[in-house]
Amino acid sequence: MTAMTGRIGETVDRVRAEVAALHSHLTRWGLVTWTAGNVSARVPGADLLVIKPSGVAYDELTAATMVVCDLDGTLVAGDHAPSSDTAAHAYVYRHMDHVGGVVHTHSPYATAWAARGEPVPCALTAMADEFGGDIPVGPFALIGSDAIGRGIVQTLSGHRSPAVLMRQHGPFTIGTTAKDAVKAAVMCEDVSRTLHLATQLGPVARLDPADVDRLYERYQNVYGQR
Amino acid sequence: MTAMTGRIGETVDRVRAEVAALHSHLTRWGLVTWTAGNVSARVPGADLLVIKPSGVAYDELTAATMVVCDLDGTLVAGDHAPSSDTAAHAYVYRHMDHVGGVVHTHSPYATAWAARGEPVPCALTAMADEFGGDIPVGPFALIGSDAIGRGIVQTLSGHRSPAVLMRQHGPFTIGTTAKDAVKAAVMCEDVSRTLHLATQLGPVARLDPADVDRLYERYQNVYGQR
Amino acid sequence: MTAMTGRIGETVDRVRAEVAALHSHLTRWGLVTWTAGNVSARVPGADLLVIKPSGVAYDELTAATMVVCDLDGTLVAGDHAPSSDTAAHAYVYRHMDHVGGVVHTHSPYATAWAARGEPVPCALTAMADEFGGDIPVGPFALIGSDAIGRGIVQTLSGHRSPAVLMRQHGPFTIGTTAKDAVKAAVMCEDVSRTLHLATQLGPVARLDPADVDRLYERYQNVYGQR
Amino acid sequence: MTAMTGRIGETVDRVRAEVAALHSHLTRWGLVTWTAGNVSARVPGADLLVIKPSGVAYDELTAATMVVCDLDGTLVAGDHAPSSDTAAHAYVYRHMDHVGGVVHTHSPYATAWAARGEPVPCALTAMADEFGGDIPVGPFALIGSDAIGRGIVQTLSGHRSPAVLMRQHGPFTIGTTAKDAVKAAVMCEDVSRTLHLATQLGPVARLDPADVDRLYERYQNVYGQR
Repeated sequence: MTAMTGRIGETVDRVRAEVAALHSHLTRWGLVTWTAGNVSARVPGADLLVIKPSGVAYDELTAATMVVCDLDGTLVAGDHAPSSDTAAHAYVYRHMDHVGGVVHTHSPYATAWAARGEPVPCALTAMADEFGGDIPVGPFALIGSDAIGRGIVQTLSGHRSPAVLMRQHGPFTIGTTAKDAVKAAVMCEDVSRTLHLATQLGPVARLDPADVDRLYERYQNVYGQR
Repeated sequence: MTAMTGRIGETVDRVRAEVAALHSHLTRWGLVTWTAGNVSARVPGADLLVIKPSGVAYDELTAATMVVCDLDGTLVAGDHAPSSDTAAHAYVYRHMDHVGGVVHTHSPYATAWAARGEPVPCALTAMADEFGGDIPVGPFALIGSDAIGRGIVQTLSGHRSPAVLMRQHGPFTIGTTAKDAVKAAVMCEDVSRTLHLATQLGPVARLDPADVDRLYERYQNVYGQR
Repeated sequence: MTAMTGRIGETVDRVRAEVAALHSHLTRWGLVTWTAGNVSARVPGADLLVIKPSGVAYDELTAATMVVCDLDGTLVAGDHAPSSDTAAHAYVYRHMDHVGGVVHTHSPYATAWAARGEPVPCALTAMADEFGGDIPVGPFALIGSDAIGRGIVQTLSGHRSPAVLMRQHGPFTIGTTAKDAVKAAVMCEDVSRTLHLATQLGPVARLDPADVDRLYERYQNVYGQR
Repeated sequence: MTAMTGRIGETVDRVRAEVAALHSHLTRWGLVTWTAGNVSARVPGADLLVIKPSGVAYDELTAATMVVCDLDGTLVAGDHAPSSDTAAHAYVYRHMDHVGGVVHTHSPYATAWAARGEPVPCALTAMADEFGGDIPVGPFALIGSDAIGRGIVQTLSGHRSPAVLMRQHGPFTIGTTAKDAVKAAVMCEDVSRTLHLATQLGPVARLDPADVDRLYERYQNVYGQR
């Protein structure tokens, strides 16, 4: 398969390097096991996405092994078959213009909530900050059609949460950039774990919705470096 | 003890290096404590297996310290006594021709299900993918005879799962290759953990068997690089 | 922004290096996720504090990226915006003269107790040693005013515990030095975890208060190197 | 304080290096937090023991920082104050001639059983192998007298288990060598964790005592390299 050339080729190369590097956060924060999980990014200025190859080990991921697909999930460039979740990522990019990155894992605590089909209740200030409410549950959907992508888009449309727990499957997260989607995946597991632990020993009350609004507003606009 | 020579000696050397290296996955994924746990591989073209030595620390394992036994578990080459689980591995190779590798651990979540004698219910898409159903429980069996090997073979014969939870003992996994058996051991602990967590906070429903069939079929034939 | 000069500049440089280095304990002991959490120290001989910048990754923290603020939380020196928790730290320094360091995390087990609004009961000798009693719960308070700082000071005043669990938020710890506050944060998570685990399987009795007094007295005066 | 000279000085140096190195297993296997926990060894041919200094960080431990005490726990050589648990270690050496090493930790799962005052039930083959029965609970005892040492010796005398869970405190383990005691501490946490997890989701039956005897006998005499 020939390399992509010209300005778009340079952009693709940059995105491939970025997507390859972002996968290290999934192992660093314990979100993935063996070869499961994947990060993708939209290629700016083109109807393309870059995604992890299918079934390749995390310590073998390099810019060169990343795969380029069009937004129907069809392979455009790369020496490997794309992630088996590519159709779901592609569906999200086709239907959510503001999304620049998508992440999927089977991280254990988030997937435990997904296995029961229960949303993670917004009961911590850190959840209000990042998710602006509960982390919602999406439908059960089989791989091999648009069902997963459709479930993600329907659940997250009009919701502040960048994370959805696909029922009996695991979390998908979105972001303006791929790094934002990775952060959402990391924080999704973090709050899923803390609320799992909290709920084990007694009931946990959700925050007052007005407080959630205040915290979310502030975190999205004040936190970090501007 | 003299080294093995000729073509079979070269093959044995290759398998020893491979089996030694595969043990690093057991520590990497937190499946083993101290010197417990072991990986073995069948030697292609010979009635031999290569296995971990007994009671040797994981960071002292090299190709040279691996042990070669015949399929009755009798030492053929190597400077160390073979794993105390060698008889169980050998029994599996004698009775399951398609098996090229066997792994045994006391990984904590899988062993917790084994302690209660409960199968891990197939309630996640990742379980359907890798195990094609529940992870079954095998009988309680004492070390020192064929009882453990027999329990593994009887439980896994006619079952899609490459993993069995030996009651009040721990998981054994099999694979076409030793690497496949290692992957099954890693995924067995992963899904045992997620379903442990999920079940702590409420009931979890098994997937529809028809969906399990579709997912298993697809994963076994489409996932990864061909 | 110009560097600080003279003797106070040297002191500030030393404190910046110390505070930057202390953050490594938060990752080492698993207390923080992504960029959450922060350590601050009072600058001896000046009405200043040094604190982590807002939203900067742990592996990018250096002495140079640390931020200097006055005790109203106003930026005095540094190239970054200060932690969004600076007002809470500053309030503590203004109202507790003996405090030389403050730490804030969302460490999972301590935050699980905070989510339910339950104190960690003093039921282990290690808790009596370090905390001299229960780890108390502080009020729910929104970021953006003095409410969090006030809640910390009111809860810890007259209490032996250097840790407070701010309700539905997470732990804050104090110390004579920043290192003492870091130690308290590490031990707070440790005993929060052990008592979480203990309580999962049955009731746990608090220690006799007279024994708590004896243990606390001894640990504060005899333990360690003098 | 002058160095020890002659043959006994050489032996002491060797034991100091060994004890310093063994502490790395406590951090490797997650048994200790901050400066808590300690390993000691009896000095062969002398009424001496070598133990960790009090309150020193694990990554600062070297042969030179180890402390030499007599079997009353009085400092004989070393630049640091000995572990605050030295009296307990010394009591064990005075009253159990076959003990060459003692380890103490607050490892989380074992300490959780200790907090409730419940023995870990012998319900796994790995427990029968290493402990030959339940891991027993010792009395609650305050530091500062012989009470802890006496509780350890009384509980372990006539018991096959090398580990005792001191009530509302944590595990102590013994061994013929310090390395054996370290192994017992590592395995104690491992089986405490697995049985904690198992018991969370339902009852777990103890093994048949006759099977425990057979497993213990075999493991003590056949496992490992001879």
